[in-house]
Amino acid sequence: MLFILKEGSQYSSLIEKIRDSSASYRVVDIYGLKLVVAWPDSLVEKIEDQSIKVKIKVKRPYQLASNEWRDKTIVNVGGIEVGGRGIVVAAGPCAVEDEEQMMEIAKAVKGAGAHMLRGGAFKPRTNPYSFQGLGEEGLKILKRVSDSVGLPIVTELMDVRNAGLIARYADMIQIGARNAQNYTLLREAGKLNKPILFKRGFGMTVEEWILSAEYILLEGNGNIVLCERGIRTFEKSTRFTLDIAGFAVAKTLTHLPIALDPSHPAGRRDIVEPLALAGIAAGADMLIIEVHTNPEKALSDSEQQLNIEQFENLMKKAKAIAKAIGRYI
Amino acid sequence: MLFILKEGSQYSSLIEKIRDSSASYRVVDIYGLKLVVAWPDSLVEKIEDQSIKVKIKVKRPYQLASNEWRDKTIVNVGGIEVGGRGIVVAAGPCAVEDEEQMMEIAKAVKGAGAHMLRGGAFKPRTNPYSFQGLGEEGLKILKRVSDSVGLPIVTELMDVRNAGLIARYADMIQIGARNAQNYTLLREAGKLNKPILFKRGFGMTVEEWILSAEYILLEGNGNIVLCERGIRTFEKSTRFTLDIAGFAVAKTLTHLPIALDPSHPAGRRDIVEPLALAGIAAGADMLIIEVHTNPEKALSDSEQQLNIEQFENLMKKAKAIAKAIGRYI
Amino acid sequence: MLFILKEGSQYSSLIEKIRDSSASYRVVDIYGLKLVVAWPDSLVEKIEDQSIKVKIKVKRPYQLASNEWRDKTIVNVGGIEVGGRGIVVAAGPCAVEDEEQMMEIAKAVKGAGAHMLRGGAFKPRTNPYSFQGLGEEGLKILKRVSDSVGLPIVTELMDVRNAGLIARYADMIQIGARNAQNYTLLREAGKLNKPILFKRGFGMTVEEWILSAEYILLEGNGNIVLCERGIRTFEKSTRFTLDIAGFAVAKTLTHLPIALDPSHPAGRRDIVEPLALAGIAAGADMLIIEVHTNPEKALSDSEQQLNIEQFENLMKKAKAIAKAIGRYI
Amino acid sequence: MLFILKEGSQYSSLIEKIRDSSASYRVVDIYGLKLVVAWPDSLVEKIEDQSIKVKIKVKRPYQLASNEWRDKTIVNVGGIEVGGRGIVVAAGPCAVEDEEQMMEIAKAVKGAGAHMLRGGAFKPRTNPYSFQGLGEEGLKILKRVSDSVGLPIVTELMDVRNAGLIARYADMIQIGARNAQNYTLLREAGKLNKPILFKRGFGMTVEEWILSAEYILLEGNGNIVLCERGIRTFEKSTRFTLDIAGFAVAKTLTHLPIALDPSHPAGRRDIVEPLALAGIAAGADMLIIEVHTNPEKALSDSEQQLNIEQFENLMKKAKAIAKAIGRYI
Repeated sequence: MLFILKEGSQYSSLIEKIRDSSASYRVVDIYGLKLVVAWPDSLVEKIEDQSIKVKIKVKRPYQLASNEWRDKTIVNVGGIEVGGRGIVVAAGPCAVEDEEQMMEIAKAVKGAGAHMLRGGAFKPRTNPYSFQGLGEEGLKILKRVSDSVGLPIVTELMDVRNAGLIARYADMIQIGARNAQNYTLLREAGKLNKPILFKRGFGMTVEEWILSAEYILLEGNGNIVLCERGIRTFEKSTRFTLDIAGFAVAKTLTHLPIALDPSHPAGRRDIVEPLALAGIAAGADMLIIEVHTNPEKALSDSEQQLNIEQFENLMKKAKAIAKAIGRYI
Repeated sequence: MLFILKEGSQYSSLIEKIRDSSASYRVVDIYGLKLVVAWPDSLVEKIEDQSIKVKIKVKRPYQLASNEWRDKTIVNVGGIEVGGRGIVVAAGPCAVEDEEQMMEIAKAVKGAGAHMLRGGAFKPRTNPYSFQGLGEEGLKILKRVSDSVGLPIVTELMDVRNAGLIARYADMIQIGARNAQNYTLLREAGKLNKPILFKRGFGMTVEEWILSAEYILLEGNGNIVLCERGIRTFEKSTRFTLDIAGFAVAKTLTHLPIALDPSHPAGRRDIVEPLALAGIAAGADMLIIEVHTNPEKALSDSEQQLNIEQFENLMKKAKAIAKAIGRYI
Repeated sequence: MLFILKEGSQYSSLIEKIRDSSASYRVVDIYGLKLVVAWPDSLVEKIEDQSIKVKIKVKRPYQLASNEWRDKTIVNVGGIEVGGRGIVVAAGPCAVEDEEQMMEIAKAVKGAGAHMLRGGAFKPRTNPYSFQGLGEEGLKILKRVSDSVGLPIVTELMDVRNAGLIARYADMIQIGARNAQNYTLLREAGKLNKPILFKRGFGMTVEEWILSAEYILLEGNGNIVLCERGIRTFEKSTRFTLDIAGFAVAKTLTHLPIALDPSHPAGRRDIVEPLALAGIAAGADMLIIEVHTNPEKALSDSEQQLNIEQFENLMKKAKAIAKAIGRYI
Repeated sequence: MLFILKEGSQYSSLIEKIRDSSASYRVVDIYGLKLVVAWPDSLVEKIEDQSIKVKIKVKRPYQLASNEWRDKTIVNVGGIEVGGRGIVVAAGPCAVEDEEQMMEIAKAVKGAGAHMLRGGAFKPRTNPYSFQGLGEEGLKILKRVSDSVGLPIVTELMDVRNAGLIARYADMIQIGARNAQNYTLLREAGKLNKPILFKRGFGMTVEEWILSAEYILLEGNGNIVLCERGIRTFEKSTRFTLDIAGFAVAKTLTHLPIALDPSHPAGRRDIVEPLALAGIAAGADMLIIEVHTNPEKALSDSEQQLNIEQFENLMKKAKAIAKAIGRYI
């Protein structure tokens, strides 16, 4: 049950009533509103209080993420709006490798029309013997490049103990697929005053994905962009199976903007473009694409990174499709 | 190994050489060419003969379906070309129910821009107690409606013993997902002088799908449109998971046109449109969409059929996207 | 709704009442009973008639296969009982290759304690260029070996037009995974007077598997042994994922005996034994195992066939486990 | 490349050579040995040094977990050996609810032959509004019950910041499926001086599972019991699909003991027994089973917890099967 409170009202009597009902509850400051979430519904749905502006019985299991009480959220990332008519493109290498490379890529993707810069400093690698990222040094490189080129940064947070560190450098914080049910990390992300790019775990249903986002919302951080990046299936010709249908379903369920990562499900650069275009046609609010000036020499995900020319071609078509559906890039 | 023969040449000496090598072989008349397919490569790759125009060592396991020897096939269905710049839309109900309904739907989908009429007369139903289709009576209805409205028909063949029957009525013959590894049926479809819409089985990899099409090609029928219609995965919010990435991979491997069915993976009408648009953006040559004038009352697949208005809206956007990528509907 | 009729009673008045209700129905002679299956329940549940012995409202979608009205079926295959306390083992090569090989294998597996002989004459191969089986010649070999060694045969039917042919040679007819939703073939199998080994399709749910068996039962053939043989999943270290849990669920739902094929999910011989033993522990009524005297030289499935010594070791452990759970092999 | 060093030897010259080669390396104290792991192989395989006892080129991607250099590891949990001839059974409720309940269950499962007590104090719940566990209070209850009843405890660690806390109370620390690719947590688990029960993520391949265990091993903690608990597939009749084949494959690849959790894949108590028995037959070194004195009233996983009588029956059969394969419970 969501109780939206009247502005500036005293709600101690409401809390007392909820406590008396033995329900659980949480006070959440979000979207400029003060909310009280209380559950289970059966214990609290009859509660009345002078502090209540609206009382909403959300039917889906994720109360704050559901679009039953809120139509649409626009997430602001360093001045870039995600979730409006404009479609936002973040591009960059899988991992930050060195400053020169990063600078070169940043200029090139900006030139091709990207709005944000992606790049991993802390990398969650399946194999412990693979390159694990440059760590804080990578963050510093990202920051200098970002300042110089003028693109906000999105980069991944893996360790709760690094939350503050990464928040100092990044404009948007990514929670990766492997940590999508790491509730400890999600709660911490909810306490940060930074927008979150929240990737779906490759073994998670759409419902579980949005329920995980609810962990972040419950801590008061409503600036979340969900990101579909492929699920695990039996098909072997691609690295993951992009779940464009699950993506479309998610759009019917939540007010949060939804991004699409065509690079990881592809796992091969020759189909990144059709997947990106499909994503735009299906309603993606943001694309996040791996681009490298020299993909063959990349330290990770070499197979799926686009080179600059491929990215430029993709952007041209992406812009045409965006326009055809009444949006722009 | 593919041997393309010189026009009008005697090839008995080639066959003799292949037999001497103990290889297996097959003579195939296809695409106006006479081919000899022989395997394994190791036994035949050194064979020379005066009848040979070109000798091609195909690296993929499907020799005839591979685009290693042929760029692009355009399939002609009653005057409609599938695989060219134009994107073909087949629409209609899941099952033929009665003539009046069929006529009404046919007129409506034609009015909205559809090029072909779909509808099942023999229905492969998971549950033996579900409506199994009208059988031959359904075919007759389809034929009369087709003649009256002027839309070629695509309908499903389930039983090898009905191949002739269905070929008499249909302009294009569908092999459904449940029969996609029914090799007996595939061979029979290969003997028909009708274009085939060949749906991917929901438990099949992309490679297996094309290998199944090879069974049809080997009998000399090259007029095949492959159709992606969703695979089985753990995701529960949709009936199947549309494998847009597998679809994009297939396009890189074969010269056959590829269709996309957004209705079955969706299993719910509210996301048929985004899936259809994604398909066009990703390069679909054809869409096959379930449309009904009164979906709520449909005898099967009631949940996923669009009503006419929804289909008209979809077509408007589909046309805009087709245009944006240099194609048309 | 199942109506079990009194022995020798006239049921024309019952049929008339069902027709009057506009319900669908089917008269089925099965398990020595005369049944009328009528649906939907809502139209017929109140029908009374002097011919009715028992009226059963089956809650599951498969009425005849459900154990709501019948506890347990024992299937007799050439004198061997499947579904009793004894666990039946069928063994033999993937494909019949020649008579000498078949004879050698048959004697060896019989010596190790197998009760039935398996071997494919018509093989459903993913790749049209793979060995497709010896056809009728293979059936003849199987029959001569069976007569000589004294083991009933199970072999696969792929083409409805071959049903009579295969029924002449085989003691038990296999419907393979790729045809598990080929309803045409299932109906034909239902008309044969031979026990059926019905494999689960690798993309089918447990419910769909039993619903497919219902197609066979509805034609009056109740001698069906279901067979779990692995499903498609993302795991790549095995060919399929043996669904031991789905197998266990199926046992709670149907009166039909259930077999387990450890060879195909394994796809590698080193884990066939643990899978076979797991199957027995979980309650399998029958095992079907690929065994070859010279697996490395087998024309198909070379990787997963056991050699004789491996099969003998497996049988020793299998017997010990069967005994531990109060059964025997 | 694994370098096993001579006891007490100086290895600084070896390290220097590795550094000179520009390879990466790590010194690991494990299993009473001092190892140097260095990679990639190509840079270090020719290095010789007086400190080297054995040099092993491990072919699999997980060097320490592979059984290419070590046959078998026995993990000691509070005096209970996992990985020997004896099969270890851990039983208990999903979550610790209160001391009385815990005490009752502990006594009952011990009476039925369990060797360890399971129970969650910190619970990773898909839904943020579900019961999240009692936290440290739960650990205290577990500890008192453990001391009183005499069963070592296994309980879950979710937050790196709680590692010390949980290590103080638990005899064995569980890393759950949702954190199986939380590399931060895995590294922390590797620094603890406690045995780890490491569950496979439900979207992870067998190879990724063992690679994740490698993160723990690389920190010097070799006391790991892997645990198969089901993967995500399309099958809907069970909560997850127990991957008994993947389990069997894992046993051929690693020296670590492997446990099996039949409760979570089942998601329903009626098939927990066959899955547990299948696990033993397939070679499980340990079972972890959810048992509750009053499952219907449990605060979580109510559907899949066995009651005491069901657990006692399971144990009787489990003992018989263990004996049949030359082991014991």
